[in-house]
Amino acid sequence: MGTGALARPGRAKLDKILFFNSRADSWGRLSLRVSLLMQIFLTILDMWAASRAVRHGGKRLGLVPTMGALHEGHLSLIRAAKSQSDSVAASIFVNPLQFGPNEDLAKYPRDFDRDCELLKKEGVDFLFAPSVEEMYPAGAVTHVTVEGLSDKLCGKSRPGHFRGVTTVVSKLFHIVEPDVAFFGQKDAAQLAIIRRMVRDLNFLVEIEACPIVRESDGLAMSSRNAYLNAQERKAALVLNRTLKRVQELFDQGERNAARLADGGKVAFPEEKSVRLDYLEIVDPDSLEALTEVKKTALAAVAGFVGTTRLIDNVVLGTEEKGFR
Amino acid sequence: MGTGALARPGRAKLDKILFFNSRADSWGRLSLRVSLLMQIFLTILDMWAASRAVRHGGKRLGLVPTMGALHEGHLSLIRAAKSQSDSVAASIFVNPLQFGPNEDLAKYPRDFDRDCELLKKEGVDFLFAPSVEEMYPAGAVTHVTVEGLSDKLCGKSRPGHFRGVTTVVSKLFHIVEPDVAFFGQKDAAQLAIIRRMVRDLNFLVEIEACPIVRESDGLAMSSRNAYLNAQERKAALVLNRTLKRVQELFDQGERNAARLADGGKVAFPEEKSVRLDYLEIVDPDSLEALTEVKKTALAAVAGFVGTTRLIDNVVLGTEEKGFR
Repeated sequence: MGTGALARPGRAKLDKILFFNSRADSWGRLSLRVSLLMQIFLTILDMWAASRAVRHGGKRLGLVPTMGALHEGHLSLIRAAKSQSDSVAASIFVNPLQFGPNEDLAKYPRDFDRDCELLKKEGVDFLFAPSVEEMYPAGAVTHVTVEGLSDKLCGKSRPGHFRGVTTVVSKLFHIVEPDVAFFGQKDAAQLAIIRRMVRDLNFLVEIEACPIVRESDGLAMSSRNAYLNAQERKAALVLNRTLKRVQELFDQGERNAARLADGGKVAFPEEKSVRLDYLEIVDPDSLEALTEVKKTALAAVAGFVGTTRLIDNVVLGTEEKGFR
Repeated sequence: MGTGALARPGRAKLDKILFFNSRADSWGRLSLRVSLLMQIFLTILDMWAASRAVRHGGKRLGLVPTMGALHEGHLSLIRAAKSQSDSVAASIFVNPLQFGPNEDLAKYPRDFDRDCELLKKEGVDFLFAPSVEEMYPAGAVTHVTVEGLSDKLCGKSRPGHFRGVTTVVSKLFHIVEPDVAFFGQKDAAQLAIIRRMVRDLNFLVEIEACPIVRESDGLAMSSRNAYLNAQERKAALVLNRTLKRVQELFDQGERNAARLADGGKVAFPEEKSVRLDYLEIVDPDSLEALTEVKKTALAAVAGFVGTTRLIDNVVLGTEEKGFR
């Protein structure tokens, strides 16, 4: 039934590429030469073919999804992927679906050449860098939603944001078919939501979280830090100070969530230029607000430094603090 | 981060099963003996392991998802799968997520032993028959939604129905990882929605549609036909007659959608016991209502025969009518 308008792109072409790749694999020299280069794929079909070839070879493939504008936080994910996989794919895609209408999609920092150099240096095997049209062709209407969790923390201030994230991550998981994917702990809500999605929809992908990477003064690394002027850069440290106060109170034995949050918020009036979006003490898996911390809790903060929205967090009650 | 509460079920166990399966594969006799039986899997992990083993062996796996209560329509899907795949998996799962609160989930016909016998006779290799708890453990909150299309045709009278379908089909695609999946043309809206989902989320699965299978008097086969008493069984033929009139008008050159629908609906008052839910002339891919049929159109009908809701359809403007 139906016309060919919605037919999936040529399986025949994919089979041809797979055949070529397996021939290449049997010629040791060509295979070696290819492995020393980072292959850049702009189309879904090419990325599919490469990941299928890795899988056919019985190798373990790791994926690091990014929006580019790479910093040390991203590179720590790549290094984790390198150490835990035979082949590493990274993706660079500034996903319009996760930006709200009044957000910074247009001005989001982009530097493809610099990103490529950084990824090559880290030994990434495949870079998937599709266009918006390639990822969202006309008529794309399907969404993946993790209900409930997606309305919490950043989801409250950014409606639709996490739906955009889970939809694009689903697509990337289907296109790259990784055995393991790496996400930063800085986006703690995103991490909890992706873990839940993977569990609920039975994606056969392991999710690895990597600790927050910070500047020497404690500011969590973020591509959006590039928006800050010198004064804002200094003011932004209030997020970190807030979490440190929460951590100190917790270490002193405070377990009441409201008192932990209030104690942290004290830091905010010190920086008039920073507007608190939220500081919440929640369950790290369900993102539900806690009244009392029983074992572990996620203390997550978001604030506007000028017009730049930044986030940070700390997990209370774990051995590894990843926190200075 | 987080507790182990939401961790995915043991990858280690999966690896162990995969290892066992590859050993079994290397013993010709064991492998042969296994292939003569239909393996029944109640857990996601066991189904995963079997499908991964098929994929590791480079074989093409076909999937036929069903809700059981099998009839000749289902068996035609199995036969199509057998002819187009090296291995065939069928699933039986009465998916609560696609039933509304006042629908027939509790009384939906179930006969697992009979279904098993039928599938064995057709030479199905794997039967996946999970429990509701296995598919939807506590805390499952993720949904896949094909926006727009899911509110049309049956989606209008059954809110949430197609969201339940796309969510469970996504899960089945992840668990079984088929190369090709087979669906009946009888659920034409479902087919269009699944095709769109596969395209939008980049599932690497081919979707094959199989023609409607009918009883000798023209009634489309359906598990729900079992609900009908003798009188209702006869009255139900009005659906088929309606579509035949639409087809006749179309064959006579009528292209105006309203006149095609009105001409079909004339059949309805003949059967007082059947209440028309809808008769619509829509685009087969987008399910958007048409005013004029340009090339092809889906004429879809749904009606309540007593309390039993039945559907049927015909694609106008194609060579293969599959229609008596």
